[in-house]
Amino acid sequence: MSKFLIEKFKKLKPYVPGEQPKERKFVKLNTNESPFPPSKKAIELAKKELNRLNLYPDPDCRELLSVTAKKLGVSEENIIFTNGSDDILNFAFMAYCNDNTPAIYPEISYGFYPVFADINNVPKKEIPLKEDFSIDINDYIDQNGTIIIANPNAPTGLTVSVNEIEELLKANRNRIVVIDEAYVDFGGESAIGLIKKYDNLLVTQTFSKSRSMAGARLGYGVASKEIINDLMRIKYSINPYNINRMTAAAGYGSIMDDEYFVNNCKTIIKNREYATNELIKLGFVTTESKANFIFAKHDKIDGKELYLKLKENGVLVRHFDKDRISSYVRITVGSLSEMQILIQTIKNILEKAL
Amino acid sequence: MSKFLIEKFKKLKPYVPGEQPKERKFVKLNTNESPFPPSKKAIELAKKELNRLNLYPDPDCRELLSVTAKKLGVSEENIIFTNGSDDILNFAFMAYCNDNTPAIYPEISYGFYPVFADINNVPKKEIPLKEDFSIDINDYIDQNGTIIIANPNAPTGLTVSVNEIEELLKANRNRIVVIDEAYVDFGGESAIGLIKKYDNLLVTQTFSKSRSMAGARLGYGVASKEIINDLMRIKYSINPYNINRMTAAAGYGSIMDDEYFVNNCKTIIKNREYATNELIKLGFVTTESKANFIFAKHDKIDGKELYLKLKENGVLVRHFDKDRISSYVRITVGSLSEMQILIQTIKNILEKAL
Repeated sequence: MSKFLIEKFKKLKPYVPGEQPKERKFVKLNTNESPFPPSKKAIELAKKELNRLNLYPDPDCRELLSVTAKKLGVSEENIIFTNGSDDILNFAFMAYCNDNTPAIYPEISYGFYPVFADINNVPKKEIPLKEDFSIDINDYIDQNGTIIIANPNAPTGLTVSVNEIEELLKANRNRIVVIDEAYVDFGGESAIGLIKKYDNLLVTQTFSKSRSMAGARLGYGVASKEIINDLMRIKYSINPYNINRMTAAAGYGSIMDDEYFVNNCKTIIKNREYATNELIKLGFVTTESKANFIFAKHDKIDGKELYLKLKENGVLVRHFDKDRISSYVRITVGSLSEMQILIQTIKNILEKAL
Repeated sequence: MSKFLIEKFKKLKPYVPGEQPKERKFVKLNTNESPFPPSKKAIELAKKELNRLNLYPDPDCRELLSVTAKKLGVSEENIIFTNGSDDILNFAFMAYCNDNTPAIYPEISYGFYPVFADINNVPKKEIPLKEDFSIDINDYIDQNGTIIIANPNAPTGLTVSVNEIEELLKANRNRIVVIDEAYVDFGGESAIGLIKKYDNLLVTQTFSKSRSMAGARLGYGVASKEIINDLMRIKYSINPYNINRMTAAAGYGSIMDDEYFVNNCKTIIKNREYATNELIKLGFVTTESKANFIFAKHDKIDGKELYLKLKENGVLVRHFDKDRISSYVRITVGSLSEMQILIQTIKNILEKAL
């Protein structure tokens, strides 16, 4: 840190991304990436942009916007594209939180929420999950502030229903509710349909997981045109061009090739059910995840230890050093063969440990 | 705007990028893009990433970092990569400006500086240029705050010398000086050499202009390791992954193919001299630009009128509605044939107008 850094940033605790080791090839099940390459159509269209990289991208991604609006059944003025969904989440913390409007979110959720609150210097209110890790909407109904809920939640994979979200929206129409649907395509239920009825709802989604584009950086927000206008003001005051040409084109290709996307999601769901069942057979307890990851613990081996042993054996999963969940590991659902390797490796570890 | 937007953003005046019309093909000389495609090596390496877009990019761009450090003659810990240089400039406004540390920059310069100040809620101090549009370093020597100077400056193309920058750094070592070198490769002199001696210097550069990668979004900052550490804290608290895989690979390819870059810069300088001379023959007054644009006025035709007439005739240049420079247009230096079309079109316009 330099002596020049202004005071309020000195205590920042930046986000710690899942490790991306280079020294060894792992079965990488730690950052919720898709095991499948992006759609061929996405690749083909991105490739076409390579010769035009000398030209700025279209900051509004108009072509992508047009097909996405159609696919989602909303108007173009209801969508903003951003550099991954982290970008839109940060904008939401900027636009809708201040000293009097704290950021309110589940105590156990996406680890970036407290970081967004801190970087934007806004108070945080973390609401405990229930004993079973579920989110009880009643805990939020009377909260004053901006509510951010990941649905499915991470790292639990548990969902709230769209009806519950509607209750939350209805209970206080002077309060923004952000629903972070990064994992919705693996079995969740989207709240996008509610944006026409509720002007206090912002839904965020991403191409990173279900559309195999984590390496391209593309996310978006869906909301009333007034909210989108707020977020556009912020985007155009920071880095309007930050979605590059290749990514916008790949996004377009991905939307145009929806069948590939739908099939991949189905495969991930199938692999999740397979691996979950195998883990249960081995004595694990898992949450009922609707995401592309499994959250699991075993009463004979601690989460940290399992993570380390798996790593030693070439399989990377994620462990969180946080009291209530430290006995768990979060395992990204990969291809069937990756799941088979995972299960076999865990079997070997358990045999030695027990 | 929604009723939810927090007060401080309600008066934001977002940046207005140069127009990117879709309805008609223009000779596009309005956003300082390169007329040349990126290096073949850049394209080839970016292409290889397309099949791996399902995997997150390396937030530290380690391979790109390694070759860039070597090329610049600095250590890896002296560089941070960002999504274009807008990103690093915004970080600098965040990290080093507050109520007591205003952002100080030339009154006529890159139009994003006041926007960065506003979005970060910090006071601005705009220092007038001299009569001839030059920056007089003496106007900055005693200023208290964070100084941001584009060198070459935009839209004038005028430079300050590295000796002058050193004076500024030396005069007050408790003050950050940011030198924005977006256009340095077209005849300016970089201050990067000074970072070893001055821990209050941040130099920013970009792949957008001289490396033909505006559409890919890649910029970087060079400074003491302490400053880089500050900026990393901010990057990792906002959007650590925001440089995508294709762009990092293209950047690597571009650095590895330096000859192509050097030749393109030479061509742009040659075309700039050609077009400048032709404009002078036609009665224009120009500044002595060391950038990839020409800043020119003609006493028989107003800047706005010339811009509109050129647009009518298929040539897009940029006009700024700002008092002291409203008689000027800023013309990006393109290929020789683009410059020939520009000159011929202006000839026709002048003939009709006079």
